[in-house]
Amino acid sequence: MRATVLHGARDVRIDDVPDPRITAPTEAIVRISAACICGTDLHPYGNMDPAEHPVRIGHEFMGTVEDVGSEVTTVKRGDLVVAPFVYSDGTCQFCQAGLQTSCTHGGFWGALGVDGGQGEAVRVPWADGTLVALPPTDDPRLIKSLLTLSDVMGTGHHAALTAGVRRGDSVTVIGDGAVGLLAVLAARRLGAERIILMGRHISRTDLGREFGATDVVAARGQEGIEQVRELTNGHGTRAVIDAVGFLAAYEQACGVVRAGGVISRVGLPQYEQAPLGVPIWFNNVTLTGGIAPTRAYIVELLPEVLDGTIEPGKVFDRTVDLDGVPDGYRAMAEREALKVLVTP
Amino acid sequence: MRATVLHGARDVRIDDVPDPRITAPTEAIVRISAACICGTDLHPYGNMDPAEHPVRIGHEFMGTVEDVGSEVTTVKRGDLVVAPFVYSDGTCQFCQAGLQTSCTHGGFWGALGVDGGQGEAVRVPWADGTLVALPPTDDPRLIKSLLTLSDVMGTGHHAALTAGVRRGDSVTVIGDGAVGLLAVLAARRLGAERIILMGRHISRTDLGREFGATDVVAARGQEGIEQVRELTNGHGTRAVIDAVGFLAAYEQACGVVRAGGVISRVGLPQYEQAPLGVPIWFNNVTLTGGIAPTRAYIVELLPEVLDGTIEPGKVFDRTVDLDGVPDGYRAMAEREALKVLVTP
Repeated sequence: MRATVLHGARDVRIDDVPDPRITAPTEAIVRISAACICGTDLHPYGNMDPAEHPVRIGHEFMGTVEDVGSEVTTVKRGDLVVAPFVYSDGTCQFCQAGLQTSCTHGGFWGALGVDGGQGEAVRVPWADGTLVALPPTDDPRLIKSLLTLSDVMGTGHHAALTAGVRRGDSVTVIGDGAVGLLAVLAARRLGAERIILMGRHISRTDLGREFGATDVVAARGQEGIEQVRELTNGHGTRAVIDAVGFLAAYEQACGVVRAGGVISRVGLPQYEQAPLGVPIWFNNVTLTGGIAPTRAYIVELLPEVLDGTIEPGKVFDRTVDLDGVPDGYRAMAEREALKVLVTP
Repeated sequence: MRATVLHGARDVRIDDVPDPRITAPTEAIVRISAACICGTDLHPYGNMDPAEHPVRIGHEFMGTVEDVGSEVTTVKRGDLVVAPFVYSDGTCQFCQAGLQTSCTHGGFWGALGVDGGQGEAVRVPWADGTLVALPPTDDPRLIKSLLTLSDVMGTGHHAALTAGVRRGDSVTVIGDGAVGLLAVLAARRLGAERIILMGRHISRTDLGREFGATDVVAARGQEGIEQVRELTNGHGTRAVIDAVGFLAAYEQACGVVRAGGVISRVGLPQYEQAPLGVPIWFNNVTLTGGIAPTRAYIVELLPEVLDGTIEPGKVFDRTVDLDGVPDGYRAMAEREALKVLVTP
């Protein structure tokens, strides 16, 4: 079959790779009908070490079950399914607690002999714990929204949920990428009244307004902090969501959070050390968030996607086939595209 | 009157200072009957910059109201009162939310012309927001426990509360100072089942066991982390309380917290930057805590202190009069005393 392989920084190729086949009775093979390129994929795309071997890539996908191992009970051949961006056994204490990203048998797509998501098919370890069966559909708008349950919608929800967003709340969302925009949607869904979106790409922040942002602040750094404080009587917002992951975004979050408030970080941190001394401590600021266990949220969010209450699929603004994937990476890296859908 | 003044590193003196007098209608004068020396006092005691002017010191006290301004309504002359370690107006939005440490008119004892707590008397700004009236008592054991509501008991409670400790929980407490031991007591009070106390002073950890610690780990660093992990099937505890404030304690906390767990920091951080990258994020660890708004907790904890359900005053193991304060500092700095009571 054909699949996306990252050969080096800015060197994405579509290669012939071995067809996936079941190697354990808990596995399934899924023929991919829709996948996407993620902001996180841009980190290895931009910085892959020349000494590294080529790697399979892609971690968001949906498709049709083509084969299942003898112990798989929750999905069957022909089912339309969506996969979260981490696979998990569904039975360990962390999975039972809804923290599937810490599953004792879990792992990442594209690593350790497991297929990546940007290809024709994928072998799914722990199919029962990982896959969620969906009602059949060929509606392209619905498919886009269902696909966001794999990562970006669930990640936005994780941000709002761990930040404790509740009715009447005030929230700042830092970052106008797909996760930031869907964090706006998630915060609105949980009842936030004031949502300040910090981002500088007008087409994106316009979508953020459509998702529920009440204010947009384009300025960054100290200027951006001051603008948010001006909008909030000098105190900042109770909740702040960092949907970026760079140190500057974290510092911005520290600057706009209200005393006693919460910063939730869902962007993969691009730093090891960060300010964590007296200012944060003196203001009783809580830091939370982390990698989102989206598997835990698919079932909760699915009904509202199916009935159109939320339409997170609006973040997709470009569609490519497998041959178009390399250009899809380029377009996302150059911020020409917000989120690229891949239809193999 | 006489009061404690810090003149430089390891130079504590009892000086004659002006008698306090009321300067605003919201103030009160309290004649101090019991005060104490805090672990936080040891930081300026050990490291005061030679270029600094002498400063008044002490932030935990109780005593008798001697005079009140015309607008004070909740305490009157002759009342026995306890003060939290930060004064606050009691009316701003932060005070109303129970975060008196962020009061818009609040501040610290011993700073900006306000008296310190280790003296004969103190002018109390915002007496209604700050002081809590107590039933009269001359029982020395009860007085010790009431005095801990000023800081160390409330700080231990803040640690356990912000860590979300609940019935059946597992908790690691790092540090066997007064706050660490009272965090053990607070965690037990909230229903924790497993409490691992990390500390190396046997007389202190014995008191920790009396307060509810189920296990004691004397080892530090990587060895200590491994011992806690061995006690917890390799996963660590759900809650971790850092009652120390040094970077090594934070790193130890990161090593013993379970995925999806919480680290609550109540020790004043002695660092500016700390590890906050992928490991914490990948494990969905929440960092919380901060300076404790003990004013918020006095009323809640008071009944259990009065009826003897909890006896936090056991942390005091030495009593001095004002002249004994310098030696009290020395004894605490050299870890000869756990917590020193001052009876002016």
